[in-house]
Amino acid sequence: VNTHNLCLLGFGNVGKALVRLLIEKQAPLRDQYGIDWRIAGVASRRLGWIAAPDGLDPEALLRGEFPASLPDLSADPVRQWLEAARSDVLFEISSLNAQTGQPAIHHLRTALECGAHAITANKGPIVHAYRELRDLAARCGKRFMFESTVMDGAPIFSLFRSALPATNIVRFRGILNSTTNYILTRMEAGLNFEDAVREAQEIGIAETDPSADVDGWDATVKVAALATVLMDSPLDPNSIERSGIRGLTGAAVQAALAEGFRYKLVCTAERGDAGQLRARVGMEKLSLTDPLASVAGTSSLVHFETDVLPGLTLTEHNPGPRTTAYGLLADFINALRPEGGS
Amino acid sequence: VNTHNLCLLGFGNVGKALVRLLIEKQAPLRDQYGIDWRIAGVASRRLGWIAAPDGLDPEALLRGEFPASLPDLSADPVRQWLEAARSDVLFEISSLNAQTGQPAIHHLRTALECGAHAITANKGPIVHAYRELRDLAARCGKRFMFESTVMDGAPIFSLFRSALPATNIVRFRGILNSTTNYILTRMEAGLNFEDAVREAQEIGIAETDPSADVDGWDATVKVAALATVLMDSPLDPNSIERSGIRGLTGAAVQAALAEGFRYKLVCTAERGDAGQLRARVGMEKLSLTDPLASVAGTSSLVHFETDVLPGLTLTEHNPGPRTTAYGLLADFINALRPEGGS
Repeated sequence: VNTHNLCLLGFGNVGKALVRLLIEKQAPLRDQYGIDWRIAGVASRRLGWIAAPDGLDPEALLRGEFPASLPDLSADPVRQWLEAARSDVLFEISSLNAQTGQPAIHHLRTALECGAHAITANKGPIVHAYRELRDLAARCGKRFMFESTVMDGAPIFSLFRSALPATNIVRFRGILNSTTNYILTRMEAGLNFEDAVREAQEIGIAETDPSADVDGWDATVKVAALATVLMDSPLDPNSIERSGIRGLTGAAVQAALAEGFRYKLVCTAERGDAGQLRARVGMEKLSLTDPLASVAGTSSLVHFETDVLPGLTLTEHNPGPRTTAYGLLADFINALRPEGGS
Repeated sequence: VNTHNLCLLGFGNVGKALVRLLIEKQAPLRDQYGIDWRIAGVASRRLGWIAAPDGLDPEALLRGEFPASLPDLSADPVRQWLEAARSDVLFEISSLNAQTGQPAIHHLRTALECGAHAITANKGPIVHAYRELRDLAARCGKRFMFESTVMDGAPIFSLFRSALPATNIVRFRGILNSTTNYILTRMEAGLNFEDAVREAQEIGIAETDPSADVDGWDATVKVAALATVLMDSPLDPNSIERSGIRGLTGAAVQAALAEGFRYKLVCTAERGDAGQLRARVGMEKLSLTDPLASVAGTSSLVHFETDVLPGLTLTEHNPGPRTTAYGLLADFINALRPEGGS
């Protein structure tokens, strides 16, 4: 049994759920996987940089009790913090800037350079620095993992990495933004657009400024992440044809439903005959028999067509911080297993 | 690059599809996985036992050109055949006796004892000898693999083995028998039971005696296989509560559909509070909003509830011999990768 020093950069709902899950799974991790852990670092804008190479009390962290952060930080606080914590694994769960992928890319690069596995729930680094981070991880003998970036804890990336060898994806379609899907579901139940957005904000699934979801940006970045990793085709999200759900009225949604159709924000990527990749995010009016039409609320779905399996669909139901945290935990366990294993 | 001697026991539609897929994927197997292969043995009731340790011409096999089978076979022809072929991998795709799992269990046991990986598309060995074969494989330093036994090539077993570590399944529900699902779909379209069965027989998805499918036996064995492997709870198929779709009329199916319901043959297994497993196969009248209701024709689906992911559904669309063959190919590739890897 090896004890691994874990550092969490970001300590919001997902970070707390991850610590709870680590505690809950401590015995099986030790007994089934030979893995032990301690929380050696926690950092956030509010907390500063807390490092304790011999381990923090995880229960105290969950109660909101934190020791003092590092004093006298250098120009590169992430590196100083990871070194002070003697970090073996960085969980990068800070706030995202999907436009640039920073500062997450810097955090992940630094972790790998410091000899730690780099695990992120941020999709920005995939679309802006996937190949760089993948190659850097290989040079450092560490792993760069990101299962939680698309469809929370549902195993999309690991599925193709380990369970579906020698598969080429020809096309995928999906419902990858849960906020818009929730809004559309509520509009079907009778709400107008503004009230559905407000309700989504009140229960914490839409941001104060909902435009990243509503205008299709979040979905676009996810399409780019899937295409980049699974189809080996780096895509700039800005190059993806995109429209959102703004302008749709509750009356239109309800009229469509009465006729047997559902409006959905659909993500598509397809390999053309010449090998080029075409991707698109936009609203579509789907027949109720379309597999994508059955996804309600915050659930999400991706449907793959491959050269060996004509159709394989994964649906994740009712995700939450614990689901995202499980994706991070699975990455942690898998980072320590032999690469390319089965 | 290592060259592996492959033996196929059974050379029907799936065996031929496997040979075609091996030819199609020869270059990526070599370049991406360092795997080369030759067909060193083919056997069936019709062909006898054909062994060629230096390799048979796969294209000639597909054209139906076979060399002479082994003469003077001993009391244990499988062993003699595997040894003559210097087999590294056995694909066990012979006809199934799901009641006993034989002769597949004997074939797989012999392969492991002869130092070959044992890969099967037969679910009988899972329900009758899973622990024995798993433990024998471990002692022999070989792998016992069976991805194609449930939902063809869809990655169910490998998903939990590699992509979802430290997960406990609480409950699963599924539509696992494609013949009955096809019959029910055709009854919704206006056919009565007898005509739907006859049509399924004509297109080759129902047997001359359809009772194994129609009475729920096939689904029951699949439930037992999933529970045995994924929930570590060996289940005797005979102990599973079972009913089939016989007796259902086309009129009843069509009336249900008009009211927004679909009849489905539903498989369920659930861990009770005391840890015991309850499993059931039976017809249910599902609301159209039930995820299981959306599976039409020969497609199949399984929905998992786990202690970490509240709901994860896998749907396989339009399977065929090539899909089953892909499950066998994936098992072959994965058998050669480090065990417990990611």
